[in-house]
Amino acid sequence: MSLRPTLDFLLYDWLKADRLAGRARFADHSRETFDAVLDTCERIAREKYAPFNRLVDTEEPRFDGEKVILPQATHEAHRAYVESGMVSAAQDYDEGGMQLPYTIEAAANGFFAVASVSIGSSLLTKGNANLLMVHGTEAQKAVFARNEFGGRFTGTMCLSEPQAGSSLSDITTRAVPDGDGSEADPLGPRYRLTGNKMWISAGENELAENIVHLVLAKIPGPDGKLVPGTRGISLFIVPKKLVGTDGQLTGERNDVALAGLNHKLGWRGTTNTLLNFGEGRYPVRGGAGAIGYLVGKPHEGLRCMFHMMNEARIGIGMAATALGLAGYYASLEYAKNRPQGRPVGSAGKDPSQPPVRIIEHADIKRMLLAQKAYGEGALALMLQCARLVDEQHTGTPEDADEARLLLEVLTPIAKSWPSEFCLEANSLAIQVHGGYGYTRDFPVEQYWRDNRLNMIHEGTHGIQAADLLGRKVVMEGGRGLQLVAGRINRTIEAALQRPDLAGHANALAQALQHVGAATKAAWATGEPAAALANAVPYMQAFGHLVIAWTWLDVVLTIPADPARRRAADTGRLHAARYFFHYELPRVAAWLKVVETRDPTCADMPEDAF
Amino acid sequence: MSLRPTLDFLLYDWLKADRLAGRARFADHSRETFDAVLDTCERIAREKYAPFNRLVDTEEPRFDGEKVILPQATHEAHRAYVESGMVSAAQDYDEGGMQLPYTIEAAANGFFAVASVSIGSSLLTKGNANLLMVHGTEAQKAVFARNEFGGRFTGTMCLSEPQAGSSLSDITTRAVPDGDGSEADPLGPRYRLTGNKMWISAGENELAENIVHLVLAKIPGPDGKLVPGTRGISLFIVPKKLVGTDGQLTGERNDVALAGLNHKLGWRGTTNTLLNFGEGRYPVRGGAGAIGYLVGKPHEGLRCMFHMMNEARIGIGMAATALGLAGYYASLEYAKNRPQGRPVGSAGKDPSQPPVRIIEHADIKRMLLAQKAYGEGALALMLQCARLVDEQHTGTPEDADEARLLLEVLTPIAKSWPSEFCLEANSLAIQVHGGYGYTRDFPVEQYWRDNRLNMIHEGTHGIQAADLLGRKVVMEGGRGLQLVAGRINRTIEAALQRPDLAGHANALAQALQHVGAATKAAWATGEPAAALANAVPYMQAFGHLVIAWTWLDVVLTIPADPARRRAADTGRLHAARYFFHYELPRVAAWLKVVETRDPTCADMPEDAF
Repeated sequence: MSLRPTLDFLLYDWLKADRLAGRARFADHSRETFDAVLDTCERIAREKYAPFNRLVDTEEPRFDGEKVILPQATHEAHRAYVESGMVSAAQDYDEGGMQLPYTIEAAANGFFAVASVSIGSSLLTKGNANLLMVHGTEAQKAVFARNEFGGRFTGTMCLSEPQAGSSLSDITTRAVPDGDGSEADPLGPRYRLTGNKMWISAGENELAENIVHLVLAKIPGPDGKLVPGTRGISLFIVPKKLVGTDGQLTGERNDVALAGLNHKLGWRGTTNTLLNFGEGRYPVRGGAGAIGYLVGKPHEGLRCMFHMMNEARIGIGMAATALGLAGYYASLEYAKNRPQGRPVGSAGKDPSQPPVRIIEHADIKRMLLAQKAYGEGALALMLQCARLVDEQHTGTPEDADEARLLLEVLTPIAKSWPSEFCLEANSLAIQVHGGYGYTRDFPVEQYWRDNRLNMIHEGTHGIQAADLLGRKVVMEGGRGLQLVAGRINRTIEAALQRPDLAGHANALAQALQHVGAATKAAWATGEPAAALANAVPYMQAFGHLVIAWTWLDVVLTIPADPARRRAADTGRLHAARYFFHYELPRVAAWLKVVETRDPTCADMPEDAF
Repeated sequence: MSLRPTLDFLLYDWLKADRLAGRARFADHSRETFDAVLDTCERIAREKYAPFNRLVDTEEPRFDGEKVILPQATHEAHRAYVESGMVSAAQDYDEGGMQLPYTIEAAANGFFAVASVSIGSSLLTKGNANLLMVHGTEAQKAVFARNEFGGRFTGTMCLSEPQAGSSLSDITTRAVPDGDGSEADPLGPRYRLTGNKMWISAGENELAENIVHLVLAKIPGPDGKLVPGTRGISLFIVPKKLVGTDGQLTGERNDVALAGLNHKLGWRGTTNTLLNFGEGRYPVRGGAGAIGYLVGKPHEGLRCMFHMMNEARIGIGMAATALGLAGYYASLEYAKNRPQGRPVGSAGKDPSQPPVRIIEHADIKRMLLAQKAYGEGALALMLQCARLVDEQHTGTPEDADEARLLLEVLTPIAKSWPSEFCLEANSLAIQVHGGYGYTRDFPVEQYWRDNRLNMIHEGTHGIQAADLLGRKVVMEGGRGLQLVAGRINRTIEAALQRPDLAGHANALAQALQHVGAATKAAWATGEPAAALANAVPYMQAFGHLVIAWTWLDVVLTIPADPARRRAADTGRLHAARYFFHYELPRVAAWLKVVETRDPTCADMPEDAF
């Protein structure tokens, strides 16, 4: 079982991704060049990632007092990924890239995430360098971003702090100008940073020559005080080792110190760290604080950071999706080979007959079909979102703006839905394995542990939900929500023409109407506290609506005439039907508390817990 | 935060467990003696279990070539438990027991499961010995059961085999008479057993002098062949070390060999083993095969085993429940102490104000209240079931029979519901902790891993569901289902008298009606394959119905007059309201496929996956 046939179907039969080659930016591409990229990534993932997924779990990163030790296999996987050119694949030809559409890049990353999600496909490095390509100076691009794309440096995002968590207004990392002339440093206005950053993935390792930290910090006002809130936040490049304007290391260690490795439940192929900036462990150039270079303007750090948020969140959704699919493939394989029990029914239960393989039991099929519906439905949504990113970058101004707004609304779903329901898929994969699934001899328990991270990082479930209901569906007068509804209605209309899909179309229309009404009801009093108390159930309902829409749109690609369908078509129709019959009815249950602005949770007194 | 206040409320205010002292068997008891038991167990759990829960996870059992090594703390916890007299607490005074009601024993076991579920409270040993007290000969009781109750021996249940899994009809362990005169062995008809047993918890360790294995095996027919199906199964006592009629070890090792330790995702405080019986590693008394003594009559092994099933399954439900509550307590503590962010709403978001503790956020309250509703609702059901066990043993013949039948229907729910929803509670406990919840520095990730076992062992979710819909709700002409419905209606009628609870009563009545109709619809064709294809969604709906009923019945205990309520009363009313508003609406979604006998899963062709 492999990801490839599903990717091919979704990319070409459904999304017509080959038509991207009609755009000027992608003119040198074709289905052939796309397929070559997919072939290469599939092969590297199979050879360099998949065989070591358990190894990176059992040999988690450790600090030997001088450096962080990762398994040799991680170094080799990273090197193979870099050498494939995938880090810079989406960049301009001028920059050494291959102007690959994001749709194809995201699809190709799926192979690595299925094979070993925590060895990873350099998402942070790419995000970091992409940000610099948009907001950095020419020197910053040349010295930092290009060396990240080339694989000499890796990158991180340093946002959270131990005392602040997701609440960025409370960060206390300080950045002060590094003395006379610092504003004219060729690498950007030079500052000294002091503070602690928590949850920094890939914060320390020896995978490359250097690590480029992108750090949020506050520049104190004239009174020396930090400005409260997020307005005061600026963005800095803080390299682990200092770099000259020629991009070469100067030989100086910057004052960025590993304060601790987090010991995680899963996702152990990469470090997660607490970093101390400017604590004095590595004093540099005779001053106090870590040296950092301002990116963009002062106090505009969050704006720069948010620029990268959509792709980072789609990346997380893709990782969660890939884990869901990895568990599906593993449990499908197991179910096809494990003999146990006999089918329900009078004749079937005859114990003198040999046992059947468990895939013949209806309840096992239910658990496999649920995984397929979750995983492939999520994959379709991820690719759809990736396609919108390409539209935003290469479409007509009107289409680009529409794509932007659609992404605003869909991104919280792309991040949250797979992280919740592909985790559920992994639990079902364990269940299909019975007792074996609970042992470390089978891969599914690790998928489940790895996937549990995805509801937490890059904005928790609660944050995604508040973003969706508190901002995205109401922004620009609700135009984003209208756009999504318009797209859903287009799919409904097409499906109504198909007798085999009209039932689904009607169910989807009803769910859409229900979500729309609940959105209004949630905001009926105009009070954010009342509307947002049930933001998570709202997001769950909205997510199921979006996935149902996605499935219906996907199966519209399948011939109406049963005689013309392949087995995979039948499978997709079943998965869609599973989603409409078993899952979509949950929407009404979630919305019940949203539409009544149910205050049960918000009103709970603390001493009553 | 502790289990105790909730236990006290449920046991005494709700279940009136002190009234059990009015029964002849419990006449020497009173609330004081019950409380003394609870006090002792609470203290032992606090001192000997809780501090070592992480230790037993990191130092999982290992085999040094001669014996299995467990941490010293596990030995000490086990010794403290044995010395408390709890292993035999429910036994007759004559047997050295204290004639403790099962209700109190089950409640007391909750402390150990909250503190460290996998160190455990000797559930298997008790179940093993209880079975022998019912089905064993006087000699078997004296030599094996009494030494288990006294703590000299521990016990196991050996059912599964690698090739058979849950399908007991396919077991191939053979038992043949051990030569002339073997039928007259004072310890019971003596056999030689050969075969492999998988998933044997506590199958090997050095916690006590000896291990008493209860083993299911088949006695071959005159043709030397094993009888297909479950009818041919018999039950044997197979001690790890042979024992004389005086109960002393004879010094002979029986041929029971550890073939492997399973390396698990969690629940690592106890071994889980593959055992080989009669493979020849420890040849004994010059014959081939492990020596075993028949319990009860030949071919009636499963009947004997099923006798213990209800309590074993309630025990699993209690373990799952306790883990759910452990996560609730940990995340509640965290939420009360962690400052982060500001409340939603215009005034609240002022960043110059200090952050609030996260328990002030509505979404955190939602996740805490969900855990409370799941965990305390499940706890109430477990105690209710335990109370029914006491009724079955000490009630009038009519009441005892009613209790038996209620237990038949409720046990699949008692086993399955907490294992699914208290696992979900543990996931929420992780989520409340944010990134910290994903680290091994906090206990919640372990609770979540430990709890994942409960949907698998003692009959998987699928098996519980087939038992519920395929057997329990239709047995005796549906009388069990009618009995449950009668009890639910009694609660509804009482709640209808309470203006503050009438809304819940109506919702419950509707859900009851819906489940009843769906039961009929599922069986409308009389085809088991059609009815049972959606047995799991049926069980989930039935479970939510039962927990909603339980919550409503619990809060009937709370004064109608708000002025007379304590904070804990308000908390329970909120938890009940949470369950009715957020959870009960899911019943309709689950039943949709049940009432239509939806064939989507059953019909899925294998090649379409």
